[in-house]
Amino acid sequence: MSVELLAITPDPERTIEKAGRTCYKSTSRTRSGSDKGLIHRIIEMGHHSVLEHASATFRVTGASRSFTHQFVRHRLCAFSQQSQRYVDEKNFDFVEPESIVGNPISHVLFEEFMAEAKAVYTKLQKLGIKNEDARFVLPNAIQSEIVISANFRQLRHIFCLRCDKHAQWEIRRVCLQMLKIMKKEAPSVFADFVIDEKNETACTQFGS
Amino acid sequence: MSVELLAITPDPERTIEKAGRTCYKSTSRTRSGSDKGLIHRIIEMGHHSVLEHASATFRVTGASRSFTHQFVRHRLCAFSQQSQRYVDEKNFDFVEPESIVGNPISHVLFEEFMAEAKAVYTKLQKLGIKNEDARFVLPNAIQSEIVISANFRQLRHIFCLRCDKHAQWEIRRVCLQMLKIMKKEAPSVFADFVIDEKNETACTQFGS
Amino acid sequence: MSVELLAITPDPERTIEKAGRTCYKSTSRTRSGSDKGLIHRIIEMGHHSVLEHASATFRVTGASRSFTHQFVRHRLCAFSQQSQRYVDEKNFDFVEPESIVGNPISHVLFEEFMAEAKAVYTKLQKLGIKNEDARFVLPNAIQSEIVISANFRQLRHIFCLRCDKHAQWEIRRVCLQMLKIMKKEAPSVFADFVIDEKNETACTQFGS
Amino acid sequence: MSVELLAITPDPERTIEKAGRTCYKSTSRTRSGSDKGLIHRIIEMGHHSVLEHASATFRVTGASRSFTHQFVRHRLCAFSQQSQRYVDEKNFDFVEPESIVGNPISHVLFEEFMAEAKAVYTKLQKLGIKNEDARFVLPNAIQSEIVISANFRQLRHIFCLRCDKHAQWEIRRVCLQMLKIMKKEAPSVFADFVIDEKNETACTQFGS
Repeated sequence: MSVELLAITPDPERTIEKAGRTCYKSTSRTRSGSDKGLIHRIIEMGHHSVLEHASATFRVTGASRSFTHQFVRHRLCAFSQQSQRYVDEKNFDFVEPESIVGNPISHVLFEEFMAEAKAVYTKLQKLGIKNEDARFVLPNAIQSEIVISANFRQLRHIFCLRCDKHAQWEIRRVCLQMLKIMKKEAPSVFADFVIDEKNETACTQFGS
Repeated sequence: MSVELLAITPDPERTIEKAGRTCYKSTSRTRSGSDKGLIHRIIEMGHHSVLEHASATFRVTGASRSFTHQFVRHRLCAFSQQSQRYVDEKNFDFVEPESIVGNPISHVLFEEFMAEAKAVYTKLQKLGIKNEDARFVLPNAIQSEIVISANFRQLRHIFCLRCDKHAQWEIRRVCLQMLKIMKKEAPSVFADFVIDEKNETACTQFGS
Repeated sequence: MSVELLAITPDPERTIEKAGRTCYKSTSRTRSGSDKGLIHRIIEMGHHSVLEHASATFRVTGASRSFTHQFVRHRLCAFSQQSQRYVDEKNFDFVEPESIVGNPISHVLFEEFMAEAKAVYTKLQKLGIKNEDARFVLPNAIQSEIVISANFRQLRHIFCLRCDKHAQWEIRRVCLQMLKIMKKEAPSVFADFVIDEKNETACTQFGS
Repeated sequence: MSVELLAITPDPERTIEKAGRTCYKSTSRTRSGSDKGLIHRIIEMGHHSVLEHASATFRVTGASRSFTHQFVRHRLCAFSQQSQRYVDEKNFDFVEPESIVGNPISHVLFEEFMAEAKAVYTKLQKLGIKNEDARFVLPNAIQSEIVISANFRQLRHIFCLRCDKHAQWEIRRVCLQMLKIMKKEAPSVFADFVIDEKNETACTQFGS
């Protein structure tokens, strides 16, 4: 699974500062580093709407359709996803959960089943069944590609929910990678998120 | 597959009229049947925001996860869906596309594969794999239950897209059932949608 | 200022329960009063999306355009507002803040200014200026009528922000009236909001 | 009134292409100029969701509160607006409609009234009335500053509605300036909008 940043608002912290200072007509207070101070205060006070003026676009590759079905429930994002109606999936890749990999019997069962799914899908195609119907046999494990855009407020909300220790492991891992990218690109907006590398989680004392 | 209306704004056409007349301070023009006339003009003029003051909630049972993954992309709805993390799916039902049913060879292939999926899922459970990981073998065809709420403007938008002849057959059938319910419950709001029973489609000359 | 409930999802707590039990396929656990227990757990756990399946529609009369300009920033609501382009405002009513009423000098100033605004607006009309341009002289204090629809999750969010002691007094009063209505109509969904009648505020230990 | 572009997704047409090609797994078809062709097809077909992956942020200065109250009804944007609760408005500027400027009598009436509004506001402040209450006398004509972010799909929707000949003149002028900026920054996304300079309108044969 990989997460790639496709696009991001240029100089996002300055853009957020410009928006924030509009509310108080305090543009004259802009100086070197003043964006970071302003953003910290915004996050502490919960004035999160200002963070909506910066956005990021990611491409997630190699995650499963289980993951995408979960993620697209975040309704304040934009999504473009590989279509199983139009794309031929006869050579599909899949995601195998670690709990299954870790057990030799389950691992073999799983791999054989994926091969079987591929074989049945191909047979249905050869029988003249269209991709949009043949896909009914495709498993949740199948890899999908998805492009996701969200503003920074929404990203904070997603990281709060999905980097939490109760989140499902696959969405948690994708979101941790997104968070790491955001910490580089807009450090002051995501500074309060503390990453626990060992447990692959992250959390913040401030909400979203 | 079945669609059940769980809840709807009481007297939705009158509620819409009350909202619409607020814009023009024309409440005094309310009389018997005036809601229907007002709604027709609203739809012709494209003043659709007024239709957002009425909502409906549906339960869709027996449709596939292919359907739900498509439908939840309509981001202006509310969704509550059967969770494959928490629900044991060992006795799952499935949807078989007509194109597969109609061919004896593909039908047998499909049914055997569904039985195999169920067997592998159960074996994984017995090997101690949690439901949230065992579900990676579950196919798109698996039935899911979902509760959907949307306001009438959003419903019109969905019907325009999903009852169209180019829409995928399963989402088209679900949406046609929703539309038929709405035509009974709020006839003037959905009167312009013409249903073609033979082709299982619907369309309107007015947009959304 | 008055707040009137125009419409609400029938039996909203049962509707929410039906949606919530769909996630866990636990419909069989429905019994007398089980909706209230489920809703309490949902709110404690923060599983707020289930609350989106019930909605309410209010008409607010006699509040100012200051209020409406603030309130329409809640983007997950539906709004229909009295239009200053189409409605003749020559007999407008206005809202006078208590701090101004309480000082005899400011009170006279304020009342005279409102009379002046009305006179200038009428003179502009007589000079052939259209309402949509004459309205440029109308003050923030002018009363407007607005119809607002929101689902219960969004209402909780609005009450958290707008019934707080830091909220502006007019929006706080409108929202307190909405909250009181909601506490009658859907007690278990709004039970955790504690109203402080003396200070005209409300808050909850649970978030939104 | 002036419209300034504060930020925009870098290389927006390529970003949109990357998202669009994800749906069909056709990334290999990317070549010089292929983004423009893809975007034209997307707009003709109405596959507008792909346009949501690029966004722009504008600062509008010198427009009235009539304008901002209208514009913030576009709920799929992000807004940060100069606050009349926190900002001292004693030196406010105002917008005078051309229909009023064009008539010597109405022009004098209007200017005198604005001076009077300023005088009353200042007197109220001196009487100890807080800005958040003194602002109740401020007229719609008062200038406000607002920062607006929206994705390209939403911008197209706004331009369709607000550059139309039936739109109110002030919002139409602001949106025309936005449109001209967008035509430079992302020509293929806004190419179909034809501007009528004489009538200060714009329209497209394709919808939004």
